[in-house]
Amino acid sequence: MAVYTEVPDDELEAFLEPYGLGRLLSYKGIAEGVENSNFMLHTDKGIFFLTLYEKRVAKNDLPFFLGLMNHLAGKGIACPVPLRNARGDMLGELAGRPAALITFLEGVSVRRPQPRHCAALGEALAKFHLAGRDFQLTRDNALGVSGWRPLFEASRARADEVVGGLAAELDAELRTLESNWPKALPQGVIHADLFPDNVFFIGEKLSGIFDFYFACNDALAYDLAICLNAWCFEHDGSFNITKARALLQAYTGVRPLDAAELDALPLLARGSAMRFLLTRLYDWQNRQPGALVQPKNPIEYVKRLRFHRGIASPAGYGLDA
Amino acid sequence: MAVYTEVPDDELEAFLEPYGLGRLLSYKGIAEGVENSNFMLHTDKGIFFLTLYEKRVAKNDLPFFLGLMNHLAGKGIACPVPLRNARGDMLGELAGRPAALITFLEGVSVRRPQPRHCAALGEALAKFHLAGRDFQLTRDNALGVSGWRPLFEASRARADEVVGGLAAELDAELRTLESNWPKALPQGVIHADLFPDNVFFIGEKLSGIFDFYFACNDALAYDLAICLNAWCFEHDGSFNITKARALLQAYTGVRPLDAAELDALPLLARGSAMRFLLTRLYDWQNRQPGALVQPKNPIEYVKRLRFHRGIASPAGYGLDA
Repeated sequence: MAVYTEVPDDELEAFLEPYGLGRLLSYKGIAEGVENSNFMLHTDKGIFFLTLYEKRVAKNDLPFFLGLMNHLAGKGIACPVPLRNARGDMLGELAGRPAALITFLEGVSVRRPQPRHCAALGEALAKFHLAGRDFQLTRDNALGVSGWRPLFEASRARADEVVGGLAAELDAELRTLESNWPKALPQGVIHADLFPDNVFFIGEKLSGIFDFYFACNDALAYDLAICLNAWCFEHDGSFNITKARALLQAYTGVRPLDAAELDALPLLARGSAMRFLLTRLYDWQNRQPGALVQPKNPIEYVKRLRFHRGIASPAGYGLDA
Repeated sequence: MAVYTEVPDDELEAFLEPYGLGRLLSYKGIAEGVENSNFMLHTDKGIFFLTLYEKRVAKNDLPFFLGLMNHLAGKGIACPVPLRNARGDMLGELAGRPAALITFLEGVSVRRPQPRHCAALGEALAKFHLAGRDFQLTRDNALGVSGWRPLFEASRARADEVVGGLAAELDAELRTLESNWPKALPQGVIHADLFPDNVFFIGEKLSGIFDFYFACNDALAYDLAICLNAWCFEHDGSFNITKARALLQAYTGVRPLDAAELDALPLLARGSAMRFLLTRLYDWQNRQPGALVQPKNPIEYVKRLRFHRGIASPAGYGLDA
């Protein structure tokens, strides 16, 4: 939640000129996204979204992210689309940073998803996975199974401050995940961060998905496991099997899971819990006193991880055997 | 520049319902204003601005601010207008805070005002002063001449850290201002904070003025003196008499200054420089390391204050004698 970069109006007008959007009527820095500076623009041609990529986003990854959005929109997926300027470029430079002008996606995030929202998400996720199949660019998942051990080592020494014995628990869990992680599941482009704040609804209808800045290539079912963690637990930490069933049934209605994916689901859910646990643990240990946005306590994901360890089969997520 | 309060979507929808604006299509926290939380809303009926008043704004002052905006808009002044809900109220409550829904004002702030912008500002300021004449509510200027001494005392001990001898210089200046401050100038509602970031332009045309949260009753010419400081100095600190002349001529073209106001102009400009110097000095001394928004260095206003001490008559600001 931040605007890191201020954009002088004259530089903004020069940047906008080759897009041919008419007069600039208004622009506001918006408090959205922690990695980039975002602005909402109003011109004679409508409302647009301007993103300036700050240093935490690797410039080399931008053609993948922007190309993916463009590809998905071409396949009918509701998502923001980068505009091309008169030179045909989706990526420009503004205030010394890589910058893109993107269509504005209407909608509101749901704070407390209901089963019907989970069903809409499941359908949208499966369609996203199908639409991504013929996208040509690729990007490794830096936060996939091979990235977890280094992240853990960076946080290990003070992990027990979160909850006693956590370092040993995570070490053992990581060994299990590393030894048993499935290598042969169907792969493709995954969103990798499809939390409720990255999905918009208008009324009951899902209006779009966005924030593709963690997207990468990995097992498709792993993306579904991320959504299980992100959408199917209550604020008190309890698992809601009705929501999970709605998510999984809607997903498999569009893209059926094969036997290996079904078998792997509990382990993938453990891995996904581990991934968010580790980044939250790191951010938690490295938080700045007095910062406007405080990182989330990782304990929530310790509980999710433990929950998934107790699940033996997809039936534990509401799928019939 | 901040959103201090997060607003749950269900509470927002309940708040909006009595305004009859249709479906909520989008809302974004925007990085504007340091005192309040601001959101841009899009509904079936258009774009609106939602402000949640945080604790630095006195709740008792809100009827004055909102009533003033409503009054000004009724007089044809281009400014945001608070909406009334089905109960006829301009002020509601949301997320435990006083909240108002306000029309969205199009436009872009000018970072480097040119003489033509200063002329447009002068005309708008004079019209604002005339429009405010029959506004019934009143509000004292807490940051007027009688408020400067206490502010100075709170910052005096470390004032010399900004520039050697500053404490003694301000003490002497304050004595001069307190002894000579004109009491009988034409009074009315003043904006009191009409910096370039509180004025919008679309292309060359001034599209509106906003941020009335310092508005109060005081000498009208004092408001003009604030604009001299806020609009007529270059980024390098030098005074631009062409801009001052444009501002003053446009203002007096709508509302002529009387002889006492003309005489008082240099002293009012000193007082206005003192007022911003003192709040900046206080904020500077009390800044938080690591805060997202760092206060501005007060030295800029020390230089302005010294400049105005050297001005003997309105001719120094480009007005013919």
